[in-house]
Formats: sequence, structure tokens, C-alpha cells
Amino acid sequence: MTLKTSWVASANSATTDFPLNNLPYGVFSINASAPRCGVAIGDMILDAAACEAAGLITLEGGPLLQSGVWNPVMEAGASVWTALRARLTELLVDGASEQSAVEPHLVPMKDATLHLPFAVTEYTDFYAAKNHAFNVGSMFRDPENALPPNWLSIPIGYNGRASSVVVSGTPVTRPWGQLKAPDAALPRFAPSERFDLELEFGAIVGQPSKGMVSVAEADDMIFGYVLLNDWSARDIQAWEYQPLGPFQSKATATTISPWIVTKAALEPFRTSTPERERPLLPYLKEPGPMLYDIDFEVSIAPEGKAETVLSRTNYDQMYYSAAQQLCHHTSSGCVMRVGDLLGSGTISGTAKDSRGSLLEMSWGGKEPITLDTGEQRSFLADGDTLTLRGAAQGEGYRIGFGDCTGQIQPAIDLPAWAQEEN
Amino acid sequence: MTLKTSWVASANSATTDFPLNNLPYGVFSINASAPRCGVAIGDMILDAAACEAAGLITLEGGPLLQSGVWNPVMEAGASVWTALRARLTELLVDGASEQSAVEPHLVPMKDATLHLPFAVTEYTDFYAAKNHAFNVGSMFRDPENALPPNWLSIPIGYNGRASSVVVSGTPVTRPWGQLKAPDAALPRFAPSERFDLELEFGAIVGQPSKGMVSVAEADDMIFGYVLLNDWSARDIQAWEYQPLGPFQSKATATTISPWIVTKAALEPFRTSTPERERPLLPYLKEPGPMLYDIDFEVSIAPEGKAETVLSRTNYDQMYYSAAQQLCHHTSSGCVMRVGDLLGSGTISGTAKDSRGSLLEMSWGGKEPITLDTGEQRSFLADGDTLTLRGAAQGEGYRIGFGDCTGQIQPAIDLPAWAQEEN
Repeated sequence: MTLKTSWVASANSATTDFPLNNLPYGVFSINASAPRCGVAIGDMILDAAACEAAGLITLEGGPLLQSGVWNPVMEAGASVWTALRARLTELLVDGASEQSAVEPHLVPMKDATLHLPFAVTEYTDFYAAKNHAFNVGSMFRDPENALPPNWLSIPIGYNGRASSVVVSGTPVTRPWGQLKAPDAALPRFAPSERFDLELEFGAIVGQPSKGMVSVAEADDMIFGYVLLNDWSARDIQAWEYQPLGPFQSKATATTISPWIVTKAALEPFRTSTPERERPLLPYLKEPGPMLYDIDFEVSIAPEGKAETVLSRTNYDQMYYSAAQQLCHHTSSGCVMRVGDLLGSGTISGTAKDSRGSLLEMSWGGKEPITLDTGEQRSFLADGDTLTLRGAAQGEGYRIGFGDCTGQIQPAIDLPAWAQEEN
Repeated sequence: MTLKTSWVASANSATTDFPLNNLPYGVFSINASAPRCGVAIGDMILDAAACEAAGLITLEGGPLLQSGVWNPVMEAGASVWTALRARLTELLVDGASEQSAVEPHLVPMKDATLHLPFAVTEYTDFYAAKNHAFNVGSMFRDPENALPPNWLSIPIGYNGRASSVVVSGTPVTRPWGQLKAPDAALPRFAPSERFDLELEFGAIVGQPSKGMVSVAEADDMIFGYVLLNDWSARDIQAWEYQPLGPFQSKATATTISPWIVTKAALEPFRTSTPERERPLLPYLKEPGPMLYDIDFEVSIAPEGKAETVLSRTNYDQMYYSAAQQLCHHTSSGCVMRVGDLLGSGTISGTAKDSRGSLLEMSWGGKEPITLDTGEQRSFLADGDTLTLRGAAQGEGYRIGFGDCTGQIQPAIDLPAWAQEEN
């Protein structure tokens, strides 16, 4: 758990997200070039595609780094994952014999545009942090029985919309939808007035399932992790979600951080899910620690103003791990494929300033939050920039994810065809 | 609405699903060859890939028929859809000048294996037949208020699992899942005991959305239709679906018929959605008839026994059309892509023998159905073969879809790791 030093000086800082211990995978372009596979190291990106083309990286079954997404590497399987990480470490470690050959393939991250690091096949969102489920249940259902009856037995999830997934930095436009005020007889079609963020952690499936998989097999199938903001229109959701679950309320955008942090990089930070309050069915039992000790932070910056940190929490707040979620996902025979993305569910701690959504922080809008700028927020305002950050803290280094950010754009004008007839 | 005659004699029968008026698109192989794009005509398949390779079909932006799926044709857009249909008609019509050049590219359908006709990008399932929603609401919620409050305003839908979609003929294995008896304190992990079918109609999105689309634009985006069986484990669903909707209960398999019947072939059969019981919001208003007069039939055959027709209904029973569903799907800014599949929701008529699921036919298992063989069914038994059929009836011809069938296989043995510890 100590820093591995690199000849890329910026990678040796205790505050960089991207030391040699990390080596996360992203996709970048410079000056509108085609998107290319790259690896973050300090404040630089190693052009992995160029390294492969130059013969500095050779992978079994390769070339695998030329398609502009990391899916071919995922498909190649765990032995390639291990070999690639070892080779990248060899190329970038302090004293590397090939430093002069590698140096021309480094580009400054500040000059790069970052793209979605992988093609998202399908997207599933879970509901697996107990404090979040408890808070939401208390607000909308019965505080005495806040957790749904199935919650302690099932990693509850629903299918989300893969087409909604965008990379950090993509503007997020306030959605239109059907809204019904509690005292109104009928809904109206209007821009969401309760647009919210959800702090989540995303697991990327790197190998396909073969039938029902165990928690251990599921963990082996996971390629890496990203931060994930599951933007949510609470008012659209409130009116639409019974009886079949959230639909358009969650379909506007799902922002992920640009770098896939590999399972290997997170290995030193494994930690366990909590004591079970109700025994789990045997198929969901974990063979070892399946969570990670990763600190998260949510911040908001009104347009042109300074940022306020809204919340700090940790991935150790989850009741179910991504491996348990993936195991459950296959229990019915559901086929999981390379590039599937699993959202953890909103991660809330017990304290008010550790909640993962404005819905919870403002308790359904009843207790607006005062930002450092003096402004108040119950839900998101146009122009607000939301940023999720996350890092696992080692000795003298951190495994970070890069910012997961998005700015709220005003709703579009209603098309003429959707307007009331006169 | 009269038969167009073809030089392929079997296409001129009043009972074939595939007269010249139809020309549906599928994917086939012969003797384990690679899957190829084909067109059904009578009891033959025209090898469309071979016709394109031979220069008999030339499409703008082509070749488009060589990939083993119809997605490239969909992506090419409506002008190509029209041109291809016109050219196929020209090649196959009675008296065609190129008959002798085309004849070598016909293969008997009985020799072919049929494959998924398109790559399914994402799958959404709706809940848009009023009788079905009313029946389910009566059984599980309140018969006095059977329809959810939002039902007459929103085409309710949820995201399904694209990886579950299989072509007709694929065996369907009874799923495992968490089941909780009403009088049990805790769930158990067991094979579903209430495994069911759902008769649905599937719409295939052939063009991407650009922002929010109108009902008219949505209709233009639809490439064609298939029959769809949304296999459903009612007992898994009952325990898992609150609060976020169906998940593993619907993820085992979704069977579609092998031939994409184009919107053009169905054009003469357009009919309207019913009178609105509550005014629709303007964005959902239809510019014209958006349903089709298509008869459906559900049959069941216990293993080695004769078939019993369980139900007959019609697509005109829908309250919302596929175009309305697709319009609503884009309302939040959700991006729709080529190859997205929309299930209509279970199509039930008003009578008991027009219901689209066993759940409804047996009223939750309380009124088992007696088959023509004397056997009783509340839900599906291992070995049962379910078949959906559908056709629009013209004068002396029908536009059919081909059988949409699947046989229930017993649940797999529970893996050792999922068993109770001793």
C-alpha cells in the first residue's frame, strides 16, 4: 500500500488521482482526432494505442487498443488484464529501460478531450445502500417500515437506459416530463422542478456470464469501476414509477467519470459488507471482502460561483457489493455481457452531510440547503455544476477516478407539436 | 388490400403468412452456414445477401445485406426501406423479367435455421392494453381502483433486458429466483412455480431519435414489427417488484418471431386507438390511426400432446400505440437508437378467452384452465410449448409473422455453491 514511483514526475505526488499504482483506462482525443485508448499517469495520458502500434505493448489476441474503446481488452479476459497492467507498470516505473521510447507517447491531460471509455452494452441500477433506502422509504412510504420488506433479502435493482450514459463534462439538459402536483387532478407536461443527482459507484462487467454465477465468479467478471451520477427527476419519478418502476425520470443522463479504475488497482482497499440483519440466502454469500474503502465527495457550484461540498461518504456504506448484485442479476438465467454497467445505488451515510442525493439532503425539499455562497438549494438550478470525486487512500498516494461532472442546462423550448392547441 | 401474385407459387395461397404483399425480413442459415439476411416469400426464403452480392439488389450506401442482421438497412433510413421493398416486389412479382436470375437464390424455408433478425440494442416493455392493466390491478391491488392513477395519462413502461431477447424456437429454461409465500416470513431460492407467458407485439426502432419526437415522427422511426412473448415469473415478480419494478422475473427470456414485418406491409391495416377516457396531454396526441388490425392467437402444447388454443385477441385492444410509446420514451431527452425494441405490453381483450397471459386466464391460479387434452394449467409446466401467431387479414391474403414459439425446459440443478450449508 505504498507509492510506486514513476519517471513521470507528476505521478509521484501524494495528491494526484493517477499514481503508478492506479493506471486507469480512458479514451481521449487531441484537437478533434479520433478517440484513442489511453492510460492516465500523473497529469499526463499515455497513448496506449500508439504504444501498441509501436510494438511497446503486445497483447495476446491483439491488437486490442485500436478501436477507441476498452471493450476488446475486457473481452480478452483476466490474463490479458493482468499482462497489460504489468507491462504498463514496467514501461512507466522509475528507472524503466524503455523510458525514451515511451516518452513520445505521453500527452498532457489538459490538452485532451475525454470520451466514454467503453461502449455501454446495458445499464442496471441498484438500490443497495441501506441509509438511502431507509431515507427514501421514510419520506415516501412509512417511517416505521421504511425499508421495503424484500430489501434485506434482495439486491433490488432495475434496468436503466444504456443510451443515457455520458462521459463527465457532458452538459445535462433539464428534462420535460409529466408532473402531477399532490393536489392536482391531472398531470401537466413541464420541465422537471425537482431535478436531482445521485452519487453512485459503477461496476463494469468485463466478461460474459455463463449461466448463474457465484459471488466469487461475479467478482472475477468485473473489469473495473467508475464514479456514476444517476441524474433523477424526482417529480417525473413520483408520478410514473408505480407500478413498474422508474423510467423517463432516470433516462435523461447518467454521467460516469472518464477513467476506468481497475479492480487490480483497488485490491489493497477491499473491505467487507456489514453484518447481516437477516441471513442472506446461500447464493448471495460472499467468500471474502467485496467492498472497497473509497471516499466520495459531492460538490455543487452555481453558475460562475465557487463550489460547496454537499456531502462526503464512503463505498463501505453499501449493504450489497457489486459482486453480489451481479450474482443476483444472473440468478434468473439473465445473460450478462461485456460492457454491462451496474450502478451501486445512491450511496448515503447516516449523517445529513453524508447523503448522496439532494432529495435526502433537503428531505424532499422541506429543508433547503444553504451553500457556501449563501444560495439555497432543494433541487438543482439551471447552471449548477455538480461534481463527484472519489479516491481510495494509500500510504502517500491515492487511487482516484477523476472528476465526474455535469452542468445543468435549461430545458429545451417545447416543440410546437407538443403545445396546447388554442 | 388484394393479393399481389408472385411467380413463387406458394406465396399466392390465401393461408401463407408470406405473400408478396408481406416481404418480411429475417436471418437464416442452412447447414450451419453463417447467418444471412433473407426475405420470406411463401414457403421459401429469398437469399437477399446473395441477391445483393450478385448485383440483383443495389442499395444506396450499400452493401447493406452482408452483415447477418438487418440493422444496416434500418440505419440507412426510410428511402432505402422504400427502395428495397420496391425492388423485392419487382424481382418476385408474377411475370418478373429477372425470374430466372432470382430463382437460384431461393431456398426452402423448411431447410433453414432462423436467427435473431436484428441486433437488439435496448429493450423496453410497456403496459398499454387496458384490459390487462385492469385485470392485473384487480387481482393484486384494488378491484375498485384497478387502473393505477397514472395509467390513463402515461404509456407506462420499464426498461427490460436486451440480452434476454431470443428468436422463436429457442428453448426457455425455467428460472430460479427468490420466492416468498404469502404466509412465509422469509423467501427461499427455488425454481419459479408461476412461470407465465405474455402475448405482446414488438416494435423495432429503425432510426435514432433527435431529441423529443412527436407521435408522427415516432411512427416514421419504426421499421417494423414482430410478435413478442415476454416470459414472466410471477412469483419472482411478486416478491421483487416493489419499489423499482420487475427485474429478474422478466430477464430469463423474451422470444420474438423470426420475421420483421415492415410498417409498409401493415399500412393497409391501420386502425385507431380508442376514445380517450381522460384527455391526453398534447404531446401524446396522434395525427392519425397508429394501431393495426392484427389478430393474435396463443396456443399451448404439453410435451408430446396436441395444441390447445388458449386465447385470441387483436392489436386493436391497445390503449396506446407503439408510436405514442416511442414519443413518450423520448420525452425526457432519452436517446433512442437503431435496433431498440419496444414491447407493447400484454394484449388482453375483455373476454376470458382473449386474455394474453395465464395469470389472467387462470385469475392468479384460482381458476385453472382445462386444455383440450384434459390437462389443467394455471401456469406453465416443463415441456409445454407455447406458440404465438398473428396475422392481418387482407382480401384473399394475410400478412403473417411466422410462429413465435418456445418450449419450457426444467430448471437447472442448483450449483453446489448456491446450496444451503450443512
